[in-house]
Amino acid sequence: MNTFGTLFRLTTFGESHGIGIGGVIDGMPAGIKFDLDYIQNEVNRRKGGKIFTTPRKEDDIVEIYSGVFENITTGTPIGFFIRNSNSKSRDYDNIKEIFRPGHADYTYWHKFGIRDHRGGGRSSARETLARVVGGAIANLMLKELGITVESGIFSVGDLNFSSYFYTDKSGKSYSLDDIDFLVDDDIKSATIADFDFANKSDIFALFNGLEDKFKAKILDTINKKDSIGGSVATRVCGICKGLGEVLYDKLDSKIAQAIMGINGVKSVEIGIGAYSSLIMGSQNNDLMDGNGFLSNKSGGILGGISNGSPIFFRTFFKPTPSIFKKQTTQDINQRAKSYILKGRHDPCIAIRGTTVVTAMTRLILADLLLLNIHSKFENIAKIYKD
Amino acid sequence: MNTFGTLFRLTTFGESHGIGIGGVIDGMPAGIKFDLDYIQNEVNRRKGGKIFTTPRKEDDIVEIYSGVFENITTGTPIGFFIRNSNSKSRDYDNIKEIFRPGHADYTYWHKFGIRDHRGGGRSSARETLARVVGGAIANLMLKELGITVESGIFSVGDLNFSSYFYTDKSGKSYSLDDIDFLVDDDIKSATIADFDFANKSDIFALFNGLEDKFKAKILDTINKKDSIGGSVATRVCGICKGLGEVLYDKLDSKIAQAIMGINGVKSVEIGIGAYSSLIMGSQNNDLMDGNGFLSNKSGGILGGISNGSPIFFRTFFKPTPSIFKKQTTQDINQRAKSYILKGRHDPCIAIRGTTVVTAMTRLILADLLLLNIHSKFENIAKIYKD
Amino acid sequence: MNTFGTLFRLTTFGESHGIGIGGVIDGMPAGIKFDLDYIQNEVNRRKGGKIFTTPRKEDDIVEIYSGVFENITTGTPIGFFIRNSNSKSRDYDNIKEIFRPGHADYTYWHKFGIRDHRGGGRSSARETLARVVGGAIANLMLKELGITVESGIFSVGDLNFSSYFYTDKSGKSYSLDDIDFLVDDDIKSATIADFDFANKSDIFALFNGLEDKFKAKILDTINKKDSIGGSVATRVCGICKGLGEVLYDKLDSKIAQAIMGINGVKSVEIGIGAYSSLIMGSQNNDLMDGNGFLSNKSGGILGGISNGSPIFFRTFFKPTPSIFKKQTTQDINQRAKSYILKGRHDPCIAIRGTTVVTAMTRLILADLLLLNIHSKFENIAKIYKD
Amino acid sequence: MNTFGTLFRLTTFGESHGIGIGGVIDGMPAGIKFDLDYIQNEVNRRKGGKIFTTPRKEDDIVEIYSGVFENITTGTPIGFFIRNSNSKSRDYDNIKEIFRPGHADYTYWHKFGIRDHRGGGRSSARETLARVVGGAIANLMLKELGITVESGIFSVGDLNFSSYFYTDKSGKSYSLDDIDFLVDDDIKSATIADFDFANKSDIFALFNGLEDKFKAKILDTINKKDSIGGSVATRVCGICKGLGEVLYDKLDSKIAQAIMGINGVKSVEIGIGAYSSLIMGSQNNDLMDGNGFLSNKSGGILGGISNGSPIFFRTFFKPTPSIFKKQTTQDINQRAKSYILKGRHDPCIAIRGTTVVTAMTRLILADLLLLNIHSKFENIAKIYKD
Repeated sequence: MNTFGTLFRLTTFGESHGIGIGGVIDGMPAGIKFDLDYIQNEVNRRKGGKIFTTPRKEDDIVEIYSGVFENITTGTPIGFFIRNSNSKSRDYDNIKEIFRPGHADYTYWHKFGIRDHRGGGRSSARETLARVVGGAIANLMLKELGITVESGIFSVGDLNFSSYFYTDKSGKSYSLDDIDFLVDDDIKSATIADFDFANKSDIFALFNGLEDKFKAKILDTINKKDSIGGSVATRVCGICKGLGEVLYDKLDSKIAQAIMGINGVKSVEIGIGAYSSLIMGSQNNDLMDGNGFLSNKSGGILGGISNGSPIFFRTFFKPTPSIFKKQTTQDINQRAKSYILKGRHDPCIAIRGTTVVTAMTRLILADLLLLNIHSKFENIAKIYKD
Repeated sequence: MNTFGTLFRLTTFGESHGIGIGGVIDGMPAGIKFDLDYIQNEVNRRKGGKIFTTPRKEDDIVEIYSGVFENITTGTPIGFFIRNSNSKSRDYDNIKEIFRPGHADYTYWHKFGIRDHRGGGRSSARETLARVVGGAIANLMLKELGITVESGIFSVGDLNFSSYFYTDKSGKSYSLDDIDFLVDDDIKSATIADFDFANKSDIFALFNGLEDKFKAKILDTINKKDSIGGSVATRVCGICKGLGEVLYDKLDSKIAQAIMGINGVKSVEIGIGAYSSLIMGSQNNDLMDGNGFLSNKSGGILGGISNGSPIFFRTFFKPTPSIFKKQTTQDINQRAKSYILKGRHDPCIAIRGTTVVTAMTRLILADLLLLNIHSKFENIAKIYKD
Repeated sequence: MNTFGTLFRLTTFGESHGIGIGGVIDGMPAGIKFDLDYIQNEVNRRKGGKIFTTPRKEDDIVEIYSGVFENITTGTPIGFFIRNSNSKSRDYDNIKEIFRPGHADYTYWHKFGIRDHRGGGRSSARETLARVVGGAIANLMLKELGITVESGIFSVGDLNFSSYFYTDKSGKSYSLDDIDFLVDDDIKSATIADFDFANKSDIFALFNGLEDKFKAKILDTINKKDSIGGSVATRVCGICKGLGEVLYDKLDSKIAQAIMGINGVKSVEIGIGAYSSLIMGSQNNDLMDGNGFLSNKSGGILGGISNGSPIFFRTFFKPTPSIFKKQTTQDINQRAKSYILKGRHDPCIAIRGTTVVTAMTRLILADLLLLNIHSKFENIAKIYKD
Repeated sequence: MNTFGTLFRLTTFGESHGIGIGGVIDGMPAGIKFDLDYIQNEVNRRKGGKIFTTPRKEDDIVEIYSGVFENITTGTPIGFFIRNSNSKSRDYDNIKEIFRPGHADYTYWHKFGIRDHRGGGRSSARETLARVVGGAIANLMLKELGITVESGIFSVGDLNFSSYFYTDKSGKSYSLDDIDFLVDDDIKSATIADFDFANKSDIFALFNGLEDKFKAKILDTINKKDSIGGSVATRVCGICKGLGEVLYDKLDSKIAQAIMGINGVKSVEIGIGAYSSLIMGSQNNDLMDGNGFLSNKSGGILGGISNGSPIFFRTFFKPTPSIFKKQTTQDINQRAKSYILKGRHDPCIAIRGTTVVTAMTRLILADLLLLNIHSKFENIAKIYKD
């Protein structure tokens, strides 16, 4: 169950304070240019180390063990490994027998009867390193096909929480307050969600005008020894029609699975999401004319299958449970304990989560892309007869 | 890809206007009392036929083909089938070549190059019949273990949309306006979400005080030839600690996958969901004392694994795209068309969706329950040596 | 675990004396002409009813429930069902509490704690009906690609047991006594294994000159109230290079799994099989020149991947355990019992097994064919950009 | 497709002349004592380096990356890696553009359009290192349950090829010439297959009286610059009743898949195997009395499920295609080439294959053991209620 995907598959292993984090990509087609610098760069983007994320500093050097020959993928599995170099397990001695509130300590203990308490072991967000590597490898294929996946911070705490994320049929993204009877051509003035800006922002903020407020909010949170939630917006452009498998591996279903499985995620909404539940069909339907869709409220997915419009969705992260205030909890002998956390932690897990959301989305798309090739017999016949 | 689950698996087939809808449950353990009346009753609960749902009237008689001997499950696969008896395919002649807005017509056409246009074919909500049968079979096992799964209508359109669904550690459920610093013992007055009431309500309404308003809203929608969205709240009680597989088959991840895959669902939130993204860690963490958790904001899931508290989550349904107003769309030759729907459709798909959410949750739990048995070697040794 | 295959998948259900035998084919691409007459004909070929097979007479009418629209596959799952009409469960009353020697009665009982004793329940060879339907559906795709799979009876008891089955690079098949230093061009005189003849033979005999001897042997067996083993030879022509997945889903590995899983099979050999273990590398290697392979001792598979030569293999069936002599056994209370079988049984299960071997081979090939499309990125890019 | 197993899963990666060979075991239950020395010892047993196997000398040090805490398994995936230290890729420069006869060079090239020609890349028998590690980890669990899996060399070339391998109900193993009407108690004199001896023999020979002849045969082969086939016998003792899943993951089916997937295997036979195809039901059936089975011709498997008797089977290996004689072949431009192999190769691949057969059998058993726990609801209820 540490494998994700059907044809394009990521299998991972490793704990926060063990030797390292690793994985295997299986199903990468042969003949794709391999770009280790790009992969390393994606890992660096995720890396903690800035004031707005965890102070734990790791080199996070990606070693590739197999599956590539003379810089081209061979179709065989790509093994990779990243060593832990800066784990301070001592920081965790005081939690050896207690369950940190809001953490997986309690559930791992009851599930397995044993846990590696050092830094959360396998439940640590450090495991998402493997997902970022996997997503970057998937992206080597997506890039060749002209597909882009981008994410950024849409809200921090209550800052911009109540606005709606929307990507029109041309791929332009917005923060909107009202989406009733939305038709793309009618969007006159709205705040643009700027993914290019997000790529350069050290907190991946989607809005030039909000970045400083987001940062101030996070710094304030750090000063309060607390943490804060946030939301991430994601956009996929260049996608073909037809991705998503009938009936239990729909595109939105797989996105929900992949994203809800990221540490700290509590909600996912596709397209205009929960908002669609409060309006009427005549407000919600994306009508068409001879040129295609007039709006994209569905988020590019109909019946679980991509319709060719950009895919967009929003992911809601809880505040990391790791805060530096005194909290009450239980130990493994069911005795009440009070407790103050040590260690190094993100004040706003959504920030680093941004890179993980992108990575998981890429893994999903690579997988559904391979699966979709079998939909039509004419595709198979064409290749078979070549 | 028409199979759902790893060890407890539902495989389905069938189209809206074909011969019928069927499926196979594989992985049902041997030795469980089989109760066909109960299964038929669950199917009846889902059935359309009331004013608030589709006027299509079907008998929906469940035939069991295998896997049961002298009323006990044998451990072999349980095949089942439900015939379509009241399909009026004629109603769909006028959409043979056009894509209904908001439907899967367009995406099926592009994915497969062919579609059964009659009633949406495989993409029809009629397929969820098979899920309800599967969920009912799963529930035969869950019941024996004392696990209950219940769902009801929490909001219709904007009615109660902005309240939060919450289930405390004892299983009591509420509609709350404010969940900051929530501790179970502090809930003084709040609207109770009443699942017993919902079971009797013909729209599965969770609130006695809101049922009439919900109904009025739906009738108003019907009069407007339109449809309306809504949300469903779900509660699981009696669950053990430890369900959910590390790392890509977490309990919340699987719930999200299962629920987002239901026709019309656009968002899923676990526990207090999106709300957690706007608060701080000190507000969001569920603290413990020697007796256990003091609150249940997480929705009974930590690190993707059940913590023994009730599981709760909320599902947001879009309005069904089937409305009786004139709409503009495209035909298979990319020509603009205007179009008025015929046929029989739900005004508020969330209502029948309620039974499907429950069914999918049961399937997930049955599957994760079987998977969890392997977590500890002591379990295996105990059984092996018996 | 009642599902077979990864992308082209057969899921089955049903028991020998239940309502019927059914299944679901998932993964059939859209756009293939559906030919129910052909499928029914394949089922008829498998059917018992001749003197040389079981006297149980069933109509075995295949009903198709879904996945086909206007006689073309739609890409959605194909459900099918065959009713049991001639089950005489009474014949089995005397074995309700005893374990028939050589049957699965004993193991089902211990595995599940319950069994449907009537006719073997799910372990009955009647279940192979579903495999034959599945294989016939798979063949609708294979036929369009020019791939043929054929099987026939190679030996009955010791008649022809010690000869070797061989198919040269051109697809001609032989029964050979000596295969040392075999080069295709050197085969001067040998007994031809004639698949056209087998198709017409009512025992699927591969050799005109042996058919009568085979029949006499079987009749003699019936007279002795006994049963007899046999072997089946299979040949696949028109296959492309590249089928078989690295590393645990090799073509030979999947054939072995599929074939060994057929009721009564005790051995499978690929190419010259066990014989290759007694010779030297210089005798066993298939050399090449500029035109290709000079021989085909490997059976068309190298490193688990098809090399474009015909694939051939041999399957060894035990005698059916159902004999009409008195035998000693045990009952469910561990008491010794003596026992005489009633019911209707095949004297030589290899005969009907012939059609099942062909069917399973077709299922394997359809699956590996879909899987192989992803090997090269150029295939994916070609289809994606279309 | 580089993953093997359903619940107990091995995923592997790595090439012969790349950085190393690695893998991930997923599904190992928590709470099992981890014994790295034992695993290293199993790897050492497989290692080449003696005169009778390949002269390539590798240290083959197993590094464990995860899944173990304070020497106990944690239930999380166990990553491992073995570095290649003695690869002489130069030896392969002369085959860069040609296809070695009998090797996977030709098929990899056609499947992927690219190959790592150095030492066979992923198709090299060096990959089986990962299987041996996986099998050793599986065995940590099997040992605790009292299950033993052992293999040894039964024949080399024609030496002992025509004898039959048999394991009686008590676990004693024999080489027999005649198995008609075999009843365990009647075995008077026969050559004992001695697994203890095999464990100490440097060619894993099962017979004290044949070891020298086997060795002489192999040395003679080396002198002739040729290679030789052989067969391996395997015995499983201490197995419970009930292993093997209905219907497409039967125990014999999974064994066949696992074993046929090992490099060089061309045939697998379960129990008395192909021999059963030439006898009658009355000769082949294993009768019972109140104490159990009177013989074990089935090899401990009925209907694909273990019956509690020892499991036994025989595996036939072809001679390795790597011989040092001049051979004719083709290059990547379809030109005929003659060719003399360099490099270091096994004269009799069955010898090292012995350890791989054992390893794969252990993986299968660990997987089916976990799967079997769900057969009966009483097992699940017992654990759930604990």
